[in-house]
Amino acid sequence: MPHVSPTTPASAAVRSDVQRNRRALLDAARQLLAVRGDVPMYEVARRAGVGQATLYRHFPDRRALIAAVAEEVLDAVEEEAAAIPPGPGALEALLRLIVASMVRTHALLQVVEDESSNPREPGTLLHGLVQRLLGMVAERFAPAKAAGVLRQDLTVDDVMLVLGMAKGVIEGLPADERDAASARALELALHGILAPRRRGG
Amino acid sequence: MPHVSPTTPASAAVRSDVQRNRRALLDAARQLLAVRGDVPMYEVARRAGVGQATLYRHFPDRRALIAAVAEEVLDAVEEEAAAIPPGPGALEALLRLIVASMVRTHALLQVVEDESSNPREPGTLLHGLVQRLLGMVAERFAPAKAAGVLRQDLTVDDVMLVLGMAKGVIEGLPADERDAASARALELALHGILAPRRRGG
Repeated sequence: MPHVSPTTPASAAVRSDVQRNRRALLDAARQLLAVRGDVPMYEVARRAGVGQATLYRHFPDRRALIAAVAEEVLDAVEEEAAAIPPGPGALEALLRLIVASMVRTHALLQVVEDESSNPREPGTLLHGLVQRLLGMVAERFAPAKAAGVLRQDLTVDDVMLVLGMAKGVIEGLPADERDAASARALELALHGILAPRRRGG
Repeated sequence: MPHVSPTTPASAAVRSDVQRNRRALLDAARQLLAVRGDVPMYEVARRAGVGQATLYRHFPDRRALIAAVAEEVLDAVEEEAAAIPPGPGALEALLRLIVASMVRTHALLQVVEDESSNPREPGTLLHGLVQRLLGMVAERFAPAKAAGVLRQDLTVDDVMLVLGMAKGVIEGLPADERDAASARALELALHGILAPRRRGG
């Protein structure tokens, strides 16, 4: 039987209030960060309909808020990825999911990058997120490689590089061109631009 | 016989002085911009060994100086590209040249991009430079396509997209990783990450 803390109805109400506020703050931050990166904290509080004291009780600083929003973005990717049937084609499907998510969360991605001058440095937001992505990719890499779907010289780092290539395209373009261009970039990276008979295996 | 303006020895000396100053300013700016983008004008003058008045006589503002340095970078790429034997393999060789040049001129590229919020907008520095690159690529695209080296669905825009993918990789990495990673990115884009038998033509 699951352990249930004994609570009075009043403390349960408080708890559900706290959860609702946190949810509202995260939703507000996500929506604002979908459009631009330089969102001030007070604007997040206002949009969530809570006071700034409440905002800072949940997220002591901007970094904590950004981190929580970014983790939720990856939660969503992971959830979508869980619906991909396992097998050799799962990696390609995962890459499409990730690239589409990068397009949707472009401004947030910029904020995370700005916070992290070196993506390899442990402790930065970006490092943590890249590690999560790496885990998702690695899990689907081995079956794809074993099934002969991937070039035999390919490494997980190469796949991460392909994500970096798509991200670069997203950053260099106006908002309304990012979706089509990044999908095309991924397609080019999957199949190559050279004709099949010219390619090594 | 070539036309030679009649000049006194004195005015010839002035002219050669002017040319030497311009050369020194461009070299100084190129060297400084190879390392970081936020180079102040007075530092360019100092390194070139000329006064600021001379600097501003040659380049009325920072944009004019940046534009001149960037044009010289493309002159150098064009010169190197001219040494590539024409034929179906010329496009691939050109792409390698361009990517290597982007690595070397990374900070300058950033400055040019910052100046140009929309790369498609005529009149921005980036637009002019992209048009020059496009010309170089287009010239070698048709023979490569005709020879069957490229996928039959490929467009010149796709090739430009591949350059954008390599650029994205360069921007996302510490300086000492850019060369290897961007070369690998180009290689992946040329050949694709999928095994040959999985690819469409």
